[in-house]
Amino acid sequence: WPQPRDPTGPVPWRLMGRRYAVLGTGAIGGLYGARLAAAGHDVHFLARSDLDHLRTDGLTVESVYGDVRLDTPSVWDDPTEMPEVDVVLVAIKTTANDQLPRLLGPFDRPGTTVVMLQNGLCVETLAADIAPSAEVLGGLCFTCSNRVAPGHIRHLDYGSVTLAAHHRDGGAAGITSALEAVASDLESAGVEVVRAPDLGVARWRKLVWNMPFNGLSVLLDATTDELIADPATHDLAAQLMDEVCAAAEACGSPLGGSTRDDMLELTRTMRSYATSMKLDAEAGRRLELDAIYAAPLDAARRAGAPAPRLETLHAQLRFLDSRRR
Amino acid sequence: WPQPRDPTGPVPWRLMGRRYAVLGTGAIGGLYGARLAAAGHDVHFLARSDLDHLRTDGLTVESVYGDVRLDTPSVWDDPTEMPEVDVVLVAIKTTANDQLPRLLGPFDRPGTTVVMLQNGLCVETLAADIAPSAEVLGGLCFTCSNRVAPGHIRHLDYGSVTLAAHHRDGGAAGITSALEAVASDLESAGVEVVRAPDLGVARWRKLVWNMPFNGLSVLLDATTDELIADPATHDLAAQLMDEVCAAAEACGSPLGGSTRDDMLELTRTMRSYATSMKLDAEAGRRLELDAIYAAPLDAARRAGAPAPRLETLHAQLRFLDSRRR
Repeated sequence: WPQPRDPTGPVPWRLMGRRYAVLGTGAIGGLYGARLAAAGHDVHFLARSDLDHLRTDGLTVESVYGDVRLDTPSVWDDPTEMPEVDVVLVAIKTTANDQLPRLLGPFDRPGTTVVMLQNGLCVETLAADIAPSAEVLGGLCFTCSNRVAPGHIRHLDYGSVTLAAHHRDGGAAGITSALEAVASDLESAGVEVVRAPDLGVARWRKLVWNMPFNGLSVLLDATTDELIADPATHDLAAQLMDEVCAAAEACGSPLGGSTRDDMLELTRTMRSYATSMKLDAEAGRRLELDAIYAAPLDAARRAGAPAPRLETLHAQLRFLDSRRR
Repeated sequence: WPQPRDPTGPVPWRLMGRRYAVLGTGAIGGLYGARLAAAGHDVHFLARSDLDHLRTDGLTVESVYGDVRLDTPSVWDDPTEMPEVDVVLVAIKTTANDQLPRLLGPFDRPGTTVVMLQNGLCVETLAADIAPSAEVLGGLCFTCSNRVAPGHIRHLDYGSVTLAAHHRDGGAAGITSALEAVASDLESAGVEVVRAPDLGVARWRKLVWNMPFNGLSVLLDATTDELIADPATHDLAAQLMDEVCAAAEACGSPLGGSTRDDMLELTRTMRSYATSMKLDAEAGRRLELDAIYAAPLDAARRAGAPAPRLETLHAQLRFLDSRRR
């Protein structure tokens, strides 16, 4: 891994680093892809709705941590025509994961690393099924970033990525060399990286925050600071977090006793913040209910962990999501 | 009871029937008060915001079961000045129950019957504390009625009243003579009456419907037919009903095994219908959360019946209600 796999390739500076494919050019793919490209990595974007705009007008990331502008990004519309890459960043919404066999399948080669920059649970299992020869990582993004127009990302706050390797048995995979390689590339691009030894723990820990606040922010049309300031929703969020922690533990990913209080404290100190699901709802996009609710609730059920409050949220969100379509 | 208590009173036709005070001239007080008056009963209204309008323009009830028009209703603004009455119909919203000592207190006399035409649980206990000499009945209205303008009620559907006597010990009081008297007056006014021997059972049975559908209709901005047609909210409503039934049983008011399925079937066959709480929300009124959620959830908690889904709804509704004020 430390050396490029294809030193005889046509691009000489390919020797300098790894080549990336970024699937999806929205708030996440646009942000991290642009930063990697600006740091000198060879980045190829697979785009859909923003394809023409990216080709003619480039990619703009307006960011609190410094703007990035790619005048002529390498943009593709067909994954089978893209060059061989070392790393695939999967940054489409989970609501489009039915497209993943077509989009990710062509990159399935030994030595390739697939990084799932997606929300929810079980997305790495899906990727590992589609690309069985690749090594799969989870990439958990803690950022407030928005696609405000075609080819135009607005990055408002935060930005760290937690990387954790997927283990086919579901257990802790530790810090693999593939993980270390992607981590160092992201760090070279100015992105803060947390290396996590256990993907399950990392995924469930993020759900402790996402399951209460994504759902409540949509259902109550509220920002996180409003939800944490009101005693009723503060206590409900705490109870919802307790259910996620209990489910995580039952699923073999114990989170540590202070997780709930840490998350509540984090939320109290955060700026007023619309969750990603709230942004999806406002933009009329489908809600990521399968990844953020159905998959973890299914895992909890199979592990015998009751989650009645989370199930209540999930049913309410299903209703809203069905009615809007 | 069968004879008027005061045959020497100043109004000769007082001999003909019972005298009523109706506290509140909204959707419920206006509807039933007008029907009793139209049937020849001596009805005195205590009004607040609609006072002037009722005195100058009278009371209009537009109803699917026949319009009623009172040109010169007897309207009062001070309960201490109102004549002695046999029956007090309490038809203010429970959100104004902090006013009840002032409004109901003056009617506390032996021989008086107080009928609580309110939603929720424990409102009869409150009335019995304020009027310890009176006999207290619960009056559970199953109606779709709206105050569309001052002195103007629109009665869209249904209209039956379930009467049940309050027992100071909380048990079943049976069919008392006071209950029978009010029932026969309402029936003489064309109102369908159900005589219920056990107030707790009657109140909890109504909550089996109200707790799921009032809350969900507000939270999801939905009508009952939308909620029952969607599989996610259908199943959630069923689970919420199960929690209410379990709470009722734990509180000594077992409802019978088919209650949930009966209520779901009833909802399926109902016309599209905005719940009373939805109408309150749309009109910017306070939501009746203490009576419909806090009181039954408090009773459930004391009886050891878990109700996590109902508590979730309650917390969400508290947030909405606080924010709107």
